[in-house]
Amino acid sequence: MIQSVAFIGLGAMGYRMAAHLPKHFNEVYVWNRNHDKAKQHAAEYGTQAVDLRQASQADVIFSCLPTSQEVDAILAQVQLKKGCIWVDCTSGVPEAAKAQALHLAAQGVHFLDAPVSGQTIGAENATLTFMVGGDSDAFQQARPAMQAMGQLIKHVGGSGAGFAVKAINNMMMAVHLCAAAEGFTTLKAHGVNLNEALACINASSGKSGVTETALPQRILNREFPLTFALPLLAKDTGIAIDLVREAKLSAPVIGLTQSLIQAANALAEPNSDFSTAIKLYESWSNITLE
Amino acid sequence: MIQSVAFIGLGAMGYRMAAHLPKHFNEVYVWNRNHDKAKQHAAEYGTQAVDLRQASQADVIFSCLPTSQEVDAILAQVQLKKGCIWVDCTSGVPEAAKAQALHLAAQGVHFLDAPVSGQTIGAENATLTFMVGGDSDAFQQARPAMQAMGQLIKHVGGSGAGFAVKAINNMMMAVHLCAAAEGFTTLKAHGVNLNEALACINASSGKSGVTETALPQRILNREFPLTFALPLLAKDTGIAIDLVREAKLSAPVIGLTQSLIQAANALAEPNSDFSTAIKLYESWSNITLE
Amino acid sequence: MIQSVAFIGLGAMGYRMAAHLPKHFNEVYVWNRNHDKAKQHAAEYGTQAVDLRQASQADVIFSCLPTSQEVDAILAQVQLKKGCIWVDCTSGVPEAAKAQALHLAAQGVHFLDAPVSGQTIGAENATLTFMVGGDSDAFQQARPAMQAMGQLIKHVGGSGAGFAVKAINNMMMAVHLCAAAEGFTTLKAHGVNLNEALACINASSGKSGVTETALPQRILNREFPLTFALPLLAKDTGIAIDLVREAKLSAPVIGLTQSLIQAANALAEPNSDFSTAIKLYESWSNITLE
Amino acid sequence: MIQSVAFIGLGAMGYRMAAHLPKHFNEVYVWNRNHDKAKQHAAEYGTQAVDLRQASQADVIFSCLPTSQEVDAILAQVQLKKGCIWVDCTSGVPEAAKAQALHLAAQGVHFLDAPVSGQTIGAENATLTFMVGGDSDAFQQARPAMQAMGQLIKHVGGSGAGFAVKAINNMMMAVHLCAAAEGFTTLKAHGVNLNEALACINASSGKSGVTETALPQRILNREFPLTFALPLLAKDTGIAIDLVREAKLSAPVIGLTQSLIQAANALAEPNSDFSTAIKLYESWSNITLE
Repeated sequence: MIQSVAFIGLGAMGYRMAAHLPKHFNEVYVWNRNHDKAKQHAAEYGTQAVDLRQASQADVIFSCLPTSQEVDAILAQVQLKKGCIWVDCTSGVPEAAKAQALHLAAQGVHFLDAPVSGQTIGAENATLTFMVGGDSDAFQQARPAMQAMGQLIKHVGGSGAGFAVKAINNMMMAVHLCAAAEGFTTLKAHGVNLNEALACINASSGKSGVTETALPQRILNREFPLTFALPLLAKDTGIAIDLVREAKLSAPVIGLTQSLIQAANALAEPNSDFSTAIKLYESWSNITLE
Repeated sequence: MIQSVAFIGLGAMGYRMAAHLPKHFNEVYVWNRNHDKAKQHAAEYGTQAVDLRQASQADVIFSCLPTSQEVDAILAQVQLKKGCIWVDCTSGVPEAAKAQALHLAAQGVHFLDAPVSGQTIGAENATLTFMVGGDSDAFQQARPAMQAMGQLIKHVGGSGAGFAVKAINNMMMAVHLCAAAEGFTTLKAHGVNLNEALACINASSGKSGVTETALPQRILNREFPLTFALPLLAKDTGIAIDLVREAKLSAPVIGLTQSLIQAANALAEPNSDFSTAIKLYESWSNITLE
Repeated sequence: MIQSVAFIGLGAMGYRMAAHLPKHFNEVYVWNRNHDKAKQHAAEYGTQAVDLRQASQADVIFSCLPTSQEVDAILAQVQLKKGCIWVDCTSGVPEAAKAQALHLAAQGVHFLDAPVSGQTIGAENATLTFMVGGDSDAFQQARPAMQAMGQLIKHVGGSGAGFAVKAINNMMMAVHLCAAAEGFTTLKAHGVNLNEALACINASSGKSGVTETALPQRILNREFPLTFALPLLAKDTGIAIDLVREAKLSAPVIGLTQSLIQAANALAEPNSDFSTAIKLYESWSNITLE
Repeated sequence: MIQSVAFIGLGAMGYRMAAHLPKHFNEVYVWNRNHDKAKQHAAEYGTQAVDLRQASQADVIFSCLPTSQEVDAILAQVQLKKGCIWVDCTSGVPEAAKAQALHLAAQGVHFLDAPVSGQTIGAENATLTFMVGGDSDAFQQARPAMQAMGQLIKHVGGSGAGFAVKAINNMMMAVHLCAAAEGFTTLKAHGVNLNEALACINASSGKSGVTETALPQRILNREFPLTFALPLLAKDTGIAIDLVREAKLSAPVIGLTQSLIQAANALAEPNSDFSTAIKLYESWSNITLE
């Protein structure tokens, strides 16, 4: 039985995720590099703003940080309780997960790589998807804590498998984004009404998460709200490429898309949403997707 | 008011589509190259099996044939009634639609390029999507006839726009198919449980029509039922590439995908479903997507 | 025996090419849209500046124009002498050559598509390469006139074959340009001395016309002299792609390169040399190839 | 002054390279995993077949092994003389060179990564190209030993730079190979005479080491002699891709080519020459490059 849960990293996702934990667990610790944010969370949601030492005494410890490097930095500082489970919700690197799991196993601690999808709205509504890699007993034990924040909680394989699924998901989304940008630029060049075309495609075999969501809500309305930053997508596509390389596979479409996202990122303004990647294509034509 | 409707081409789609017309119109003519099939349709659904001369006297004439070439061949044989509307549901070539519209305009006849999506199940349930190019008055006039067979009926632009949307839809689907093949091959190489990964991705930003339908219902179950033939997908991706070329655009992901689909088609057995394109990737690794 | 030769189009190439003809033939007519240039050529090299009517009476008529469209426009205006041979040195479209050959055959005239390589220096020194498509007897008859201006005169196939070889040559050069840009950007990012690396590669299997000439003489010295314009390269890569499409082949590297050259051309300043295409890559990094 | 030289690894390259050393140096040690080959070399060229302990006492020690892993394995076994220089002619990994240089620096030994090009014929004639990374004083000291076997000896940068140049050279060659395969398949599909076309291209801007050598001597004559194995080319293109990834660059053409070479390698018979990669394209068409 989980008595205490800690949450490390109160960013846009983590802040909303940790808010659900006090409804299900008696002791909920939160830690953030900027401690004021932790205190604000405690005031708002009834969690306890603690130092790393205390956070590391919980039964289940979540982390949600920008990259695997920040997770490594935290892990190097803490002494964990034997038998506890570390659940890392970062969109991290599969190889790092394997190393982290090995490192913690030596302390009698389980490490699960458990990245999430669903964005801030999913975090707010506790409807996130958790794709989890690692030991299956540890997964079963930690599942109730994940269920407090998510709807679909899946064990997808051993250490690193969760990160791999997240990286491939984001890579596939990047491919779909390029396909949509190229397809809709072509349609516009031929005088097609884009909104009507979008309605048709979203009722047909060519639809994707990008055509259903990003295209109407971010791109065609020219709003490009920053919710998932382009540099993070570039990072994730890089993780996907590394998975391809390690397995010595041929993945030409993934490889090309990674080059294009990398180029789009190099040209983008700071703090650009991933959806601005379509501007790479717009720079190559006189066509604006609107 | 539409008094008479004809349907030319009773293939897997046309046979099912034309079946709905007698519920809405008094005179419904059907024609097929193999006349026995037309007679069977008449017996089954109360349509009239006629020759091309009579079919061409209807107020609205639908055609649903393999390619624009077959439509041209029929158009060369018929003398149409002034004021009637030809609605071509073939997945045709935009340039051909422009020429056909011009040709028929000289006879006082409107030509609409009106390809459909939704497959045989959509044809059976009258839930097809019609993406229609051509004159907007003609579109309004012919709309009731399309509504007898479809759910979403959209006017997407001038002559050729309907074919363009269909070609781009199928091209995007082909890109998504390659992305799925590459992504899932990579996941399998890293020991990930594909069914659990698919559940996660279908709840996340990386989903597509391919991950929601083709992957579980055609590929991972290794059934590859023939409902949309790979050579037709290859043809449609070629139409998409021609649209890119005519507009002098850069569409690298679309271009690469067209090459891959072309290669997959060259290697495929006759009568292969489009979903077998993933076997191109399987031939490059020891990995089977199942 | 060739008694009279005409040369139509005195651009950077044609002006130098036609200068060699009076050394070998008695009657040499030159024609140019701007007649002053023809008169200047006559004064300088002893040719005769004539109108199109007279030019079209020669035994062998060369044309060297920007695209096949300009050739079509001239052909529409002239009445040729039965038995004469039209030798088109434009970097033209294979399909156009077939149509032109058919059109002239009806007048008892042979059309050879005979594009050249070797640039202005080759034109000046009469060391051009002629790659010739069309009837082989006509080729043998016209060969002496080509030999006056070239060194390597090759009959590569039927009508259109000459244009096809030129387009594929330029397409391959474009691929080599992208390979060089990507390879040398990568080396520079890793701190390698580019000039020493170039010396090694030019003595190794990775060399190309681009590494031997364009890279040291146009790019690494940052001079980018305009001798072959980027829009013309973009046009030629388009011709190559159309050849791939017509033959229903898979040519992914050619396809991708065409997209990149198209993008580079869209971003380039007017009157840019083809070698400036590498700036597309420079815009994606902080690396300058120098 | 170099008194003694050792050569480790008497494969197709090393056997011929080491043969030149006795003409220039008094003490020449050779070592090979299969000692009989070393003894044969000693008998044939007047070298001394020694054990690893003695080989490691030379002033300059060359290694020429399949991959960096084999070099690591040897380095782990030997105790080197302070001040000596290890010159690794393997087509190795730049990151490995950095680690090896660091490891040997601790023993007061210099490590140069010095891969060669020129194939067995260059090894036989002592006309190899050496592309060398590492300390420039060490380069100057070891240069006479390299000059005994090569013609062009270039210092291209710090540790790893030699391996990087070799990997990029081979990667560029792979791109040129794909360009040639795609270009010549297209020409053949259009009925062009390939040998005449090749003569034209080799006199034009589209030429490359591949069109000058591999195409006529390995491919069009259908001989595919095994001198550089396809798996080694696949390995080298992988090294190139890793260089691109480390520098976070966009190199789409290189990336695509790596996928294609990887696919060609997966499909190839064992012991295939790199030039058989064109069979990937042949499998996609009915066209044979001959």
